[in-house]
Amino acid sequence: MSSIDVETLWLVGLAFPDGRCADLEIAGERIGRIGRAEPGAPCRDATGLLCMPSLIEGHVHLDKTFLGCSWQPHLEGGSVAERIRLEKVARARVDDPVVVRGARLAERAIAFGAGTMRSHADIDAEWGLANLEAEIALRERFADRLDIQIVAFPQSGILRSPGTDDLLEAALEAGADLVGGLDPAGIDEDPVQHLEIVFDVADTYGKGVDIHLHDAGALGCFELGLIAEMTRAIGLQGQVTVSHAYCLGQVDPATFGRTAEALAASGIAILTSAPSGAMPPVRALRQAGVTVFAGSDNIRDAWAPYGDGDILRRATLAAYQQGYRSDADMGYALDLITTESARALGLADYGVAPGRPADFVLVEAETVAEAVANPPARRVVFKHGRLVAGTL
Amino acid sequence: MSSIDVETLWLVGLAFPDGRCADLEIAGERIGRIGRAEPGAPCRDATGLLCMPSLIEGHVHLDKTFLGCSWQPHLEGGSVAERIRLEKVARARVDDPVVVRGARLAERAIAFGAGTMRSHADIDAEWGLANLEAEIALRERFADRLDIQIVAFPQSGILRSPGTDDLLEAALEAGADLVGGLDPAGIDEDPVQHLEIVFDVADTYGKGVDIHLHDAGALGCFELGLIAEMTRAIGLQGQVTVSHAYCLGQVDPATFGRTAEALAASGIAILTSAPSGAMPPVRALRQAGVTVFAGSDNIRDAWAPYGDGDILRRATLAAYQQGYRSDADMGYALDLITTESARALGLADYGVAPGRPADFVLVEAETVAEAVANPPARRVVFKHGRLVAGTL
Repeated sequence: MSSIDVETLWLVGLAFPDGRCADLEIAGERIGRIGRAEPGAPCRDATGLLCMPSLIEGHVHLDKTFLGCSWQPHLEGGSVAERIRLEKVARARVDDPVVVRGARLAERAIAFGAGTMRSHADIDAEWGLANLEAEIALRERFADRLDIQIVAFPQSGILRSPGTDDLLEAALEAGADLVGGLDPAGIDEDPVQHLEIVFDVADTYGKGVDIHLHDAGALGCFELGLIAEMTRAIGLQGQVTVSHAYCLGQVDPATFGRTAEALAASGIAILTSAPSGAMPPVRALRQAGVTVFAGSDNIRDAWAPYGDGDILRRATLAAYQQGYRSDADMGYALDLITTESARALGLADYGVAPGRPADFVLVEAETVAEAVANPPARRVVFKHGRLVAGTL
Repeated sequence: MSSIDVETLWLVGLAFPDGRCADLEIAGERIGRIGRAEPGAPCRDATGLLCMPSLIEGHVHLDKTFLGCSWQPHLEGGSVAERIRLEKVARARVDDPVVVRGARLAERAIAFGAGTMRSHADIDAEWGLANLEAEIALRERFADRLDIQIVAFPQSGILRSPGTDDLLEAALEAGADLVGGLDPAGIDEDPVQHLEIVFDVADTYGKGVDIHLHDAGALGCFELGLIAEMTRAIGLQGQVTVSHAYCLGQVDPATFGRTAEALAASGIAILTSAPSGAMPPVRALRQAGVTVFAGSDNIRDAWAPYGDGDILRRATLAAYQQGYRSDADMGYALDLITTESARALGLADYGVAPGRPADFVLVEAETVAEAVANPPARRVVFKHGRLVAGTL
């Protein structure tokens, strides 16, 4: 089956995360019934495949990846500022433009089962809006197979890269979906002023926020407090993400508790790429009412040489880092790239249920726990009712 | 090519870890020349493949894995003792015997590129030597494709599982290659007595030692000190491994330095499975002169649901956990499953060089760094000059 050319098609013999076995009807772009296929209706055998909702890649950089380029040895930098500079050296060495490199990553993400992706685009005085424009072109090109949200990301800082504040506004006017930020203290050395610019722009353009925060320990938690305050001040609850927030894994329980409470009260989501060392404590955040979701972050780029765009394998890594072993915990790891991500990204109409968009991925696994513990190589991916990757 | 049926065969166009491109001659079971293939000699095109030495799986449990069984949900235990008990419950639920389950893991390990494996076999009053006997049967069955070293592992403790001391001796008489131990303080609550039994048995039978040590922080480091002392006392330098040793990642620099020095002085190797949280600091240990190597440990068993037997991907995880990014560091990550493992396991005649055994693995990668950062799916595996997995 290389395409769906009938209005209605039953996939027969699927397993579902709740343990049910049933057939699923694709009715145009949507899911019809889930139950027993109508006798005589067009159908395909999908016995032994587990049906999971379309996966969500919560954090990538389509402009940064070197996927498909010749091997680029990592250039070691001693500080974040130095590594920002070295990234430009490394990117100048590859010939393929962002639209080519980013397209490779988008293709792989789709093949691995992603139906939605949030990507950051570097914005600064040197790049101008070039990376953003390339990502917007990718967003259009992949619109029928992958929904891409683009964050205008001030990778060189805002205050220390003059003109970036104006560029952020220009980026939103050009079509960015969210405004980003970066280490308000660690990079720009003025957390309040940095965040005021970010939230002013978000407020002016009615857009959400996704801030990279690597600042450590108490400093990072202080900044999370500021972000929570500013989010409430402009009524942006539910539309703000802080990416990484290693600090949440580095502080004493009292500071953690106070910070998690502020995040929950302001509806701020935390994105993690499952780093080694200081990963935010996922369970404790969830118990405090904070939405936590996962993303791949750097995929074979100037920041890190790892990764291939498989967001399911990133959920495996998140589960491993958090010491998850039970089926329930492995299920929660899947939530990090499905339901929790959908909430963080504001996706309406998400999930495998009658009437919802026919966006899902089929894998050879008995249970979600098995799929997360050992991501199966084969993926059969549907988006808008069409088979977009794999074969059935 | 499904088998080598000529005495001499050239593999043409290989890349090597040092950056050279050359052809490699297989002469019977050994590597002949590395250079330019003789005109007219039998040859196969291997252009674009990187030649790495045969990989070494430093730590598995062939008797524990549930690979190929229906999904076994993890049974959560609150303590190591409770989890030891629950493992027996879980293992009683699967029908396939150790020789079947272990064979699946051995086959996968070979297909991923392993030529040598160290496996632990549970020995206790209930199991008796049954697991060991099954692993010995596997060692014989796979002898032409995979060298297996077997550790007689007192999974239920020695002092708290009466009769295990005699079983350890019986295990070595039956053919175990090394004697094991387990948390001398945490499980047996008498580190000196536990270790005296282990080292007495090793001394009596002239065998090496590989001890599981999960005991934390200062306690674990205290035990490492005892192990170093006993190793020196019976002249077992170079034949003792401590597996896991999380404690080395949990203590202050002074304790770490003192412990690492003692380990180096006694020629004790540290095995890591690249856990989350307290992984031993690999670079600091190496700088102190300690051999560090890597293994998969639990592969889809009662202890953890992860893994598929790919030791190259475990090197990726080790590199990721240690924050490695440079080509040099990625090369060191490969050492953890090649040269460093070979030293720890006492393998003579190891490595890709003229005259050495023709044991190697070919992968689609430009550099070792690329192979470690993104383990290629395709593996072409040679052992004793024969193609044992993959196609060329």
